[in-house]
Amino acid sequence: MRIDRTRLEQSIEELGRIGATERGGLTRVALTDEDKRGRDLLVRWMREAGLRVTVDQMGNIFGERAGQPGQPPVMMGSHADSVPTGGKYDGQLGVLCALETIRVLNDHRVRTRHPVTLVIFTNEEGARFQPAMIASGVMAGKIALEDAYNARDKDGLRLVDELERIGYLGSEPCVPRPLRAYLELHIEQGPFLEEEGLSVGVVEGIVAIAWSRVTIHGVQDHAGPTPMRIRHDALVAAAEIVTGVRGIARDIGGELVTTVGHVTVTPNIPNAIPGRVTLSIDMRDPSDAALDRARALLDRIVRQACEREGVRYELEHYWRVPATPFAPEVVGAIERAARALGARHRRILSGAGHDAQYMAAIGPTGMVFVPSRDGRSHCEEEFTPMADIEHGANTLLGAALELAGQA
Amino acid sequence: MRIDRTRLEQSIEELGRIGATERGGLTRVALTDEDKRGRDLLVRWMREAGLRVTVDQMGNIFGERAGQPGQPPVMMGSHADSVPTGGKYDGQLGVLCALETIRVLNDHRVRTRHPVTLVIFTNEEGARFQPAMIASGVMAGKIALEDAYNARDKDGLRLVDELERIGYLGSEPCVPRPLRAYLELHIEQGPFLEEEGLSVGVVEGIVAIAWSRVTIHGVQDHAGPTPMRIRHDALVAAAEIVTGVRGIARDIGGELVTTVGHVTVTPNIPNAIPGRVTLSIDMRDPSDAALDRARALLDRIVRQACEREGVRYELEHYWRVPATPFAPEVVGAIERAARALGARHRRILSGAGHDAQYMAAIGPTGMVFVPSRDGRSHCEEEFTPMADIEHGANTLLGAALELAGQA
Repeated sequence: MRIDRTRLEQSIEELGRIGATERGGLTRVALTDEDKRGRDLLVRWMREAGLRVTVDQMGNIFGERAGQPGQPPVMMGSHADSVPTGGKYDGQLGVLCALETIRVLNDHRVRTRHPVTLVIFTNEEGARFQPAMIASGVMAGKIALEDAYNARDKDGLRLVDELERIGYLGSEPCVPRPLRAYLELHIEQGPFLEEEGLSVGVVEGIVAIAWSRVTIHGVQDHAGPTPMRIRHDALVAAAEIVTGVRGIARDIGGELVTTVGHVTVTPNIPNAIPGRVTLSIDMRDPSDAALDRARALLDRIVRQACEREGVRYELEHYWRVPATPFAPEVVGAIERAARALGARHRRILSGAGHDAQYMAAIGPTGMVFVPSRDGRSHCEEEFTPMADIEHGANTLLGAALELAGQA
Repeated sequence: MRIDRTRLEQSIEELGRIGATERGGLTRVALTDEDKRGRDLLVRWMREAGLRVTVDQMGNIFGERAGQPGQPPVMMGSHADSVPTGGKYDGQLGVLCALETIRVLNDHRVRTRHPVTLVIFTNEEGARFQPAMIASGVMAGKIALEDAYNARDKDGLRLVDELERIGYLGSEPCVPRPLRAYLELHIEQGPFLEEEGLSVGVVEGIVAIAWSRVTIHGVQDHAGPTPMRIRHDALVAAAEIVTGVRGIARDIGGELVTTVGHVTVTPNIPNAIPGRVTLSIDMRDPSDAALDRARALLDRIVRQACEREGVRYELEHYWRVPATPFAPEVVGAIERAARALGARHRRILSGAGHDAQYMAAIGPTGMVFVPSRDGRSHCEEEFTPMADIEHGANTLLGAALELAGQA
């Protein structure tokens, strides 16, 4: 039993047209009109595949293919939202490979002991509403529903209002539910599989992630008549922090990655000394202890940079996810499936957060990675060859079948 | 003959309410609805003062108080637009002190040889449409009308369309016109007058100003699974440039000031490595030669920062105004007026660009400065005591009278 590569490829193309950018990428940010159109198409496909579709309080969409009564499901899925000018693979590919798996089970009239459920998570990217993976976080009980509902985008719109606006504020409780297993196929978003000529990554777990935010309060003033000696420039302090954050990765080394991705400057005009700057700091490491050391360095860098410029600051460490090992039983099933196919594969750690990270707190969880060309993602150039996608999807199918069991 | 302090103070208050911010500042950005309301009020006051009001092709507003036939006018004025969350004095004060001067001439039925004309320039700040001082630049023949019309704000709106929208696209040619003199009162925007306990600055000229823009092209990628060794982070290069720009002022010293005020980051989300960053660089010095040296340093800093990070860049030096000495005759008239009043004053150089900079290319020009508390401007805390404003306005009145001549 194998997936239908042509059908899968067509689905990727068709869903990828919703929010497509001119340069081959995707802008389908969470709870926008494009997200709604993407969800609508997926729900139609789920119904056509005979699934029972429900939506929960966070807008997560579930499509169940029945198994034997009373058995917890094998759940598979990912997210359908993208970052702005992102790619056509991140998230979408995991949803469509899971859908293809279910279509193949239908084609072959396979009856499984455990139900097989497709899930599409809301706002995984965190590009519009923070934190990322907010909906699986609520489901795992790690984020309060009320906090998630009150998350605001940059225009001040609340997540719950936008959920309602696009028609995906469901009534099913968003709580942990019994699970046989959770499986997610995703692009690697790093360079390793491609560099080593592999098609499949058997993901053993996810690195620890810490998000911080620093707000720097300088003194806004005119760029011309204000002599250098009386300046307190929020951006000068911010620049030193950006340089320092890069240095943290160099100093601690290993697999630590550190990124400043988001910057706001006030008033942000050429002839005013910046009065206020905010920076986001994203740090990740396989080891929670290394991440603790990185955070201590960050505290010092921010304090010293702001002292030197004579500016006030607030530093918030507002999100932290510990390193997450996946369930050996599920990792084993994925590895066996890849081996049975003859797909070139190896075990790998995920450097990106995924909904699987929270799902691992609910039930046995594992992930399948497929390569990213040049290691690139969150950009229009994001690309995975169909040959690798086929191997990945068949690995997902094999693992799902083993875990669901034939009835 | 003296200005009416109470009337002037009331006018400052009343105009300052249009676009007032909660914290006592002003947001009345060029060609917005607030700017239109401010202009409408000023035009009403100009008509009430008996002035003949005309509007030119750049939306500059002129109000003429007649003199003897065939004589070129003494022109006085400033601008009525503000930066976002700016103050109630920058620009507005110069317009209202000039208006008060005319009201006093009316009160005393003074007849002057030369007409006295109030002018309000469009978009002096350059906060919305660049470059700054665009309308006096067109009038002086330094900026092509067509280029000014096609200047776009960050939403892509064109200056000419916004001029038309608010009803200030006039028909008078925006060209050099015969001038007896141009006088502009303005806040100092620096700390010197206040530090030295002076009420009036007799401005001898304006420093040279250079604006540059650098666009850095990195590789947008995911902040998690992208190892540090393969990153090309546009923001890391940008941070090094911000630090380097601060260093230019330290290295060259003297009165050179250097500022990065405007930053854009793409895609600007916490979990993506910035793919593109733009920075504005503003540098000013009394000496054109020093500014040339600063620019050479900037070229090197940008090149080295981008080489180190392995990113491409474009560096544009897109605006340059040479150091502008004012007319000795006009500077002398201002100095005599301040001395006659007994106002504490000294000669000073302007670190900020003003419409007077372009007007100096058309006719004999001078400026009157009044102090800025803590040297601050382009912020809500901008403040000048009424006692100093009174001295400044009376200095303006005295200089205008000397230059216009009694008929």
